[in-house]
Amino acid sequence: MEELLIDEPVILEELEEKIHIPESEKPRVVIIGGGFAGIQMVKQLRKKSFQIVLLDRHNYHTFQPLLYQVATAGLEPDSIAEPLRKALDSNRDFYFRMASLERVDPEQKVVHTNIGYLEYDYLVIACGSVTNYFGNKEIEKNTFPLKQIPQALDLRSHILQNFEKAVLMIDSEEQKEYMNIVIVGGGPTGVEVAGALGELKKNVLPKDYPELDLSKMEIILLEGRDHLLAGMDESLGEKAIKYLKKFGVEIILGKHLKGYDGNEAVLSDESIIRTQTVIWAAGVNGNVPNGFPESSVDYSRLLVDRYSKVVGCEDVFAIGDIAFMKSEEAPKGHPMLAQVAMQQGRLLASNLDRIQKDKDLVQFSYKDKGSMATIGRNKAVVQLPRLKFGGFAAWVVWMFVHLFSIIGFRNKLVVFSNWVWNYFTYDRGIRLIIRPFIKRKAAKNKSI
Amino acid sequence: MEELLIDEPVILEELEEKIHIPESEKPRVVIIGGGFAGIQMVKQLRKKSFQIVLLDRHNYHTFQPLLYQVATAGLEPDSIAEPLRKALDSNRDFYFRMASLERVDPEQKVVHTNIGYLEYDYLVIACGSVTNYFGNKEIEKNTFPLKQIPQALDLRSHILQNFEKAVLMIDSEEQKEYMNIVIVGGGPTGVEVAGALGELKKNVLPKDYPELDLSKMEIILLEGRDHLLAGMDESLGEKAIKYLKKFGVEIILGKHLKGYDGNEAVLSDESIIRTQTVIWAAGVNGNVPNGFPESSVDYSRLLVDRYSKVVGCEDVFAIGDIAFMKSEEAPKGHPMLAQVAMQQGRLLASNLDRIQKDKDLVQFSYKDKGSMATIGRNKAVVQLPRLKFGGFAAWVVWMFVHLFSIIGFRNKLVVFSNWVWNYFTYDRGIRLIIRPFIKRKAAKNKSI
Repeated sequence: MEELLIDEPVILEELEEKIHIPESEKPRVVIIGGGFAGIQMVKQLRKKSFQIVLLDRHNYHTFQPLLYQVATAGLEPDSIAEPLRKALDSNRDFYFRMASLERVDPEQKVVHTNIGYLEYDYLVIACGSVTNYFGNKEIEKNTFPLKQIPQALDLRSHILQNFEKAVLMIDSEEQKEYMNIVIVGGGPTGVEVAGALGELKKNVLPKDYPELDLSKMEIILLEGRDHLLAGMDESLGEKAIKYLKKFGVEIILGKHLKGYDGNEAVLSDESIIRTQTVIWAAGVNGNVPNGFPESSVDYSRLLVDRYSKVVGCEDVFAIGDIAFMKSEEAPKGHPMLAQVAMQQGRLLASNLDRIQKDKDLVQFSYKDKGSMATIGRNKAVVQLPRLKFGGFAAWVVWMFVHLFSIIGFRNKLVVFSNWVWNYFTYDRGIRLIIRPFIKRKAAKNKSI
Repeated sequence: MEELLIDEPVILEELEEKIHIPESEKPRVVIIGGGFAGIQMVKQLRKKSFQIVLLDRHNYHTFQPLLYQVATAGLEPDSIAEPLRKALDSNRDFYFRMASLERVDPEQKVVHTNIGYLEYDYLVIACGSVTNYFGNKEIEKNTFPLKQIPQALDLRSHILQNFEKAVLMIDSEEQKEYMNIVIVGGGPTGVEVAGALGELKKNVLPKDYPELDLSKMEIILLEGRDHLLAGMDESLGEKAIKYLKKFGVEIILGKHLKGYDGNEAVLSDESIIRTQTVIWAAGVNGNVPNGFPESSVDYSRLLVDRYSKVVGCEDVFAIGDIAFMKSEEAPKGHPMLAQVAMQQGRLLASNLDRIQKDKDLVQFSYKDKGSMATIGRNKAVVQLPRLKFGGFAAWVVWMFVHLFSIIGFRNKLVVFSNWVWNYFTYDRGIRLIIRPFIKRKAAKNKSI
């Protein structure tokens, strides 16, 4: 959805000047990306003897697991983001630069960015994943992804704005089209955003829009497989369906989205849902920078060995979503999850130290601590290595794990206070429409 | 600064269809603007027998006195705004529509908006003021105003982004240009934003940017008069100067800004300050809608009698900043302050009721409850009708008055928690750069 409009940092023109970082006797590690993998890497690495340069095109780290709450007016964007300079400010010989990577040059050991070039001793690619539209340009253009804060803000404003439009209409079929929301993808993101929208429909929107008949609003979760939460046990997928139905969410299994022109969502069986809002949570792709040899890339991710070293390049590593680590324990690679990214970041930091000290390296082995998804008020599903359960207890576990994981004590406090407030008031305080003037959307609505 | 990019609500094309509001036996009051005047009007009016329609181009009320804290990373935008539907949702026969006023037609008793037209029995214009650039297009184009939430967010991102640019530079004169900030206008807004920036410089930016020599950063407050805080007692203006200097703010009195091309601020004595950031807080203008006869307009405000009735129009009223009410007690009209707006809103609500009941109307008389301004940590000046003082006690008074005035219990809590947090940590948590891609600014910086 024209995300570049609000998302692209404006810094400097490409100058191909050298980025100014003081010389150091210590080897320089350049890390691309301040997500879960990059942050962990910096935190571990600062205890060792390296000069660290972190590049990110945003000046903040995003706690992606709670993005859906920003999109559904439950949290302020500020409380799930942490300025990178603040998160990492106690480091000595640490440098943050706000920059977009344009190209790597593993031969010359240089990265090229929009603010100039930079030499490295070790390069760590941790730039995560991007939304995968499977090549469908129409879907890419007309649906809302949910990977970054500006996208979440835009979705929030879009949904509220459609309700403001709906109250202007007399035709109830047309109103329905503006209220309906289709969510594509029954993984954790799709399930969580559907649950949160179900809560909005039940508790918040009827108070704000007494003029509208909310019973006509449809929230539809679409999943191509025959069950939800594919990474988890099937019984939990079934629980999720039960919980979602309680919040008025319809679930369509075994069908996928074939096309969406901004007005009509066409499913694989040619059935049509009229809606102004389609949220795309159906998949992500690696985000491979330019400059890598073909042999290093596999399925749009960087092929790495069990030490996170990129195959075919010297002194270049990849961690997190971007890394494709095939092994006996994970023949199809590891799932693209925060846990994997954090563990790889921590291990690579100590392995770099071992390289410096000529010690034997330690192979990566994923410790699955479990996964979980929340489905609106009081309901969640949790799968731990030896235990799986749903309901209120799962919801409490989900809350504490997420609170504990957010970076920054201030953010923990703010998120916790917001949750307590929202829980007891059945309210969502953050219903402001603040958004860029998106010409395409305006044009699309011209016919109304 | 291209505010339309992020500020303009996208609703519908102009259709000139009738806005759909249910018919009512009660007379319909249409209120334009959900600011201090409009909100008070609605709150008082709902106790009477009227159908109320509130139009605003945003779906939220902005607590403008704290905008400067959003611009200086002290508060989230959400905590100084309240969704209008939420603030007013307990009203019966109350309708909110998100719309921009295009033209009034007092003859036909109709307003025309971007979402259609609407008939009224009584019309209340409460659309506030806009930034006054005194006709200088260059200044309008290149300075930052501070009247609306998107503007405050844009300023916050601009300042932080300039620091990200400064760390890329080797030339310390060039760095200085990116750090320097000029604030034009020594009224409460200018003084408060200057104080908050002084705090940022002293407590926050040195931690975030250890690479920069913050002692080179200049924060300059420019005021054309020979004293600050013109509306208050001169001794308080002097106190403000003393406090601002403690926070490292330079004050230039008796000069005004002649021009600013985005790089060089030229003062009235031809002296030049090189800076990338000029904040314009030098004045506001009324925001008179189209369609009023010339005789109703005076100095870009609507001329009203002491019952807030617009001169030369029947059943049309104006309250708040837009209204120019000349009287013996205020020969130049009342100051454009929230207090005036709120008092006028409340009185007009009861006067409309008196009109309906054929009772005698009550003339407006401004009860000045005092004015105040805060200057960073622990310092403020307060002028009450019989008492004026500065320092810590004033700062405590300032805090409680503002907390008490913010609409919404949730906002009170969030703002209070943020203040406590910021006070004890000497921190400003909200340093995210999230902003639209502004092509003009990017082009301007091309030469760097």
